Amino acid sequence: MILGTYVLYILCLIMESVMNYLDDHLNTAIEDVIRLCRYATVAAKEQDIVETADVVKGMLDELGLETTLHETSGAPVITAWMDNGADRTLLFYDHYDVQPAEPFDLWDSPPFEPEIRDGRIYGRGTCDNKGDFVSRVWAVKAFLKTNTDIPVNIKFIVEGEEEIGSPNLHEFIEKNKEFVKADAGIWEFGASDANGIQEAWLGLKGLLYVQLEVEKLSHDAHSSYACILPSAPYRLVDALMSLRRPDGNISIDGFYEDVQPLSEKDEEAISKIDLSEEKIKDFYGIFEFVNGLSGSQLKQAFYNAPTCNICGITTGYQEEGSKTVLPAKASAKIDFRLVVNQDPDDLIRKLRAHLDEFGFKDVEIAWSEGYPAARTPVDHPFVEVVQKANREIYGHDITIHPTNPGSGPLYLFDEYVPMVSIGVADFYSRAHAPNESILVENFHLGMKRMAAIMNEMKDW
Amino acid sequence: MILGTYVLYILCLIMESVMNYLDDHLNTAIEDVIRLCRYATVAAKEQDIVETADVVKGMLDELGLETTLHETSGAPVITAWMDNGADRTLLFYDHYDVQPAEPFDLWDSPPFEPEIRDGRIYGRGTCDNKGDFVSRVWAVKAFLKTNTDIPVNIKFIVEGEEEIGSPNLHEFIEKNKEFVKADAGIWEFGASDANGIQEAWLGLKGLLYVQLEVEKLSHDAHSSYACILPSAPYRLVDALMSLRRPDGNISIDGFYEDVQPLSEKDEEAISKIDLSEEKIKDFYGIFEFVNGLSGSQLKQAFYNAPTCNICGITTGYQEEGSKTVLPAKASAKIDFRLVVNQDPDDLIRKLRAHLDEFGFKDVEIAWSEGYPAARTPVDHPFVEVVQKANREIYGHDITIHPTNPGSGPLYLFDEYVPMVSIGVADFYSRAHAPNESILVENFHLGMKRMAAIMNEMKDW
Repeated sequence: MILGTYVLYILCLIMESVMNYLDDHLNTAIEDVIRLCRYATVAAKEQDIVETADVVKGMLDELGLETTLHETSGAPVITAWMDNGADRTLLFYDHYDVQPAEPFDLWDSPPFEPEIRDGRIYGRGTCDNKGDFVSRVWAVKAFLKTNTDIPVNIKFIVEGEEEIGSPNLHEFIEKNKEFVKADAGIWEFGASDANGIQEAWLGLKGLLYVQLEVEKLSHDAHSSYACILPSAPYRLVDALMSLRRPDGNISIDGFYEDVQPLSEKDEEAISKIDLSEEKIKDFYGIFEFVNGLSGSQLKQAFYNAPTCNICGITTGYQEEGSKTVLPAKASAKIDFRLVVNQDPDDLIRKLRAHLDEFGFKDVEIAWSEGYPAARTPVDHPFVEVVQKANREIYGHDITIHPTNPGSGPLYLFDEYVPMVSIGVADFYSRAHAPNESILVENFHLGMKRMAAIMNEMKDW
Repeated sequence: MILGTYVLYILCLIMESVMNYLDDHLNTAIEDVIRLCRYATVAAKEQDIVETADVVKGMLDELGLETTLHETSGAPVITAWMDNGADRTLLFYDHYDVQPAEPFDLWDSPPFEPEIRDGRIYGRGTCDNKGDFVSRVWAVKAFLKTNTDIPVNIKFIVEGEEEIGSPNLHEFIEKNKEFVKADAGIWEFGASDANGIQEAWLGLKGLLYVQLEVEKLSHDAHSSYACILPSAPYRLVDALMSLRRPDGNISIDGFYEDVQPLSEKDEEAISKIDLSEEKIKDFYGIFEFVNGLSGSQLKQAFYNAPTCNICGITTGYQEEGSKTVLPAKASAKIDFRLVVNQDPDDLIRKLRAHLDEFGFKDVEIAWSEGYPAARTPVDHPFVEVVQKANREIYGHDITIHPTNPGSGPLYLFDEYVPMVSIGVADFYSRAHAPNESILVENFHLGMKRMAAIMNEMKDW
């Protein structure tokens, strides 16, 4: 008993030096975030890919991990591996690419010139997910720099095409199945909610992203000819309205047929969750959610509803003032969020069949990309590890969400490693939008929580 | 009889010197077109207005006309006046502004660096309507330079905001009613048809241009939130579909209630017209007109159908690749073409009432502009003057259209001067679109026809 207490005391001292290191080196760690976010690594535009991959590999090299840059048909994947002779292995999945920063004029500071204001680090990629990656690198670094044994083996997989649907990650994983195997994994992102409570996500929705295009004329016409010429914009608008009803329900035949209801355990988990409805409403400046949803119905939509969302429409004249033109072409970008068991390949066929059936043979699916949803069970022991570490660092229970409403290529990892997604963002981080940012405080504690998770994994 | 023939002979000689002058100075006249089209006089962006007005005034000053630059609340109006002691007065209405040139990348040569290729002059404004203005200036110049008496008094009114709906022309005309009075007027534009036959337009449709805007969120959201947040793009699309049926018929209550059927004389005039259906189809790369219209039904749509046309839609991400975003805002530009007797002020109220009634109180009419249609009767004697002059120069009958499907502020002139619209464009001129151009030959003969009209007016 006395010996046990002594061991615990020593262990606490050891972890104290790791945590102190992270306290003492916060500013240097933030400099790494800023350095990485200076790259405009927009995968959609194939920008700064090679340069960013190089910096990411350099950060992992510096830790002394065995790093490899894997060429793919697209952006390279970087892996890093450290065998600490431990019983268990922890895998980190991150990405070094970011969403486009448009519209630039809505940023208060340039998206790729990160700056700190009022306790927040602003810049594209700070929250999604370069800030997370750096926090994980520093958690490992803190053990190494304090000569503390790392109680788990470490693996990193960092890809560069997450924001365009990870088109080449499948190819990488097929070739590196052994590497992907681990006892537990930390997925790329996570945040605190509107009340400052940390959140863990055990799954991700799937995604089907399509670009619809209609071309009715060989070139733009003077709009006086609208009395006799067909309208590409109106064809597109008509097709878009055919895809979903005004209430948001998707009208494509068979779209919902593979959707499964949430399990009893999932229902139990979500019954404990406070979605902070009023704070979400305030944040987005709305008076009510779609269809006036609230409470458990809102949660059902949040955790288990597929969506059909217009990400963008382009046609005709879009500048100031008026131009009287009948545009020859029109196009729309649409993302469908999918829940567990929905197959994007099947749904793209159903989308095409829907368009054909409703007379929209002239509406072309110019390109599409997608992947299915995936989830880690709410009762997996690693979930409890994360919970313990969170209590230690944040002093409160982390909220366990059965899935996040967002998407990612989690399904590729599903059979090799159970994943939990947590991170350094917060409710006001504006992922994918102008003025993306993270709280310095969350970044700080996020590094420490990651170190605590590594420590907790040895007792699992 | 012999004396009469002699007089006719002398008159022919006199006109021969005028016509020879225009033949001999074609290249110098073209240089004036190019000089004027180098200005990017985009009224929608208030570009190059002062500079272009200055050049226009200079060209008229050089003729020795009494010119005045009238300041308005927007772009200045330039007038020019030459009292030749003649019985009749001919008024020219032109504009020195142009449509925006976007999308720039579809131009084979820069829109504001005019160039001649294969017998055509390319550049924004060549056909609409800087080329016409120059052709009229040169018709007057040919009389003056050959010391030939001009058989009519001459008036020019040249405004700089036609392409944005002439918002300040009303104010100018109110102050200058006497100046606007004339026996006949030549409206700004005209063209030869797909078969090379010249066309005269006796009227213009009215216009109601509106910008619809929807804002549902205070800022863009990650599209994973589409499961619970309202969609501005879908609200806009829904509202747009509510405005017209897929067949093009406008669904706004009362929109057609002031539309009158064509008169018997109009019907007689249009029965003679060949709309060159196959050539229009070829030009726009289509297999059929809207709703499969042809023959007399197509003509009814062309001459007497109001339209609801989407000129542009802007929302969300519009670059290459994918961005998963739920846009906070969406907007659309719509033009309604109106026929005689429809009142744009009344229709904007009906549009607002429609949106309200169908639950689109959140769809804002951010701004609007417009004016009614106007027409000169098909049996006005000036129409025959134009017909004669056309036969002399082109050797064929000009097609008399009761109205053009396009719009302009003709209604402001309606009570002061009967107008006929003819010009130097042709079927392939691409007004308002990329690669706008005119045929050198049409510009050349257009100058000569205008001189012939002045000559014919003395016998009317």
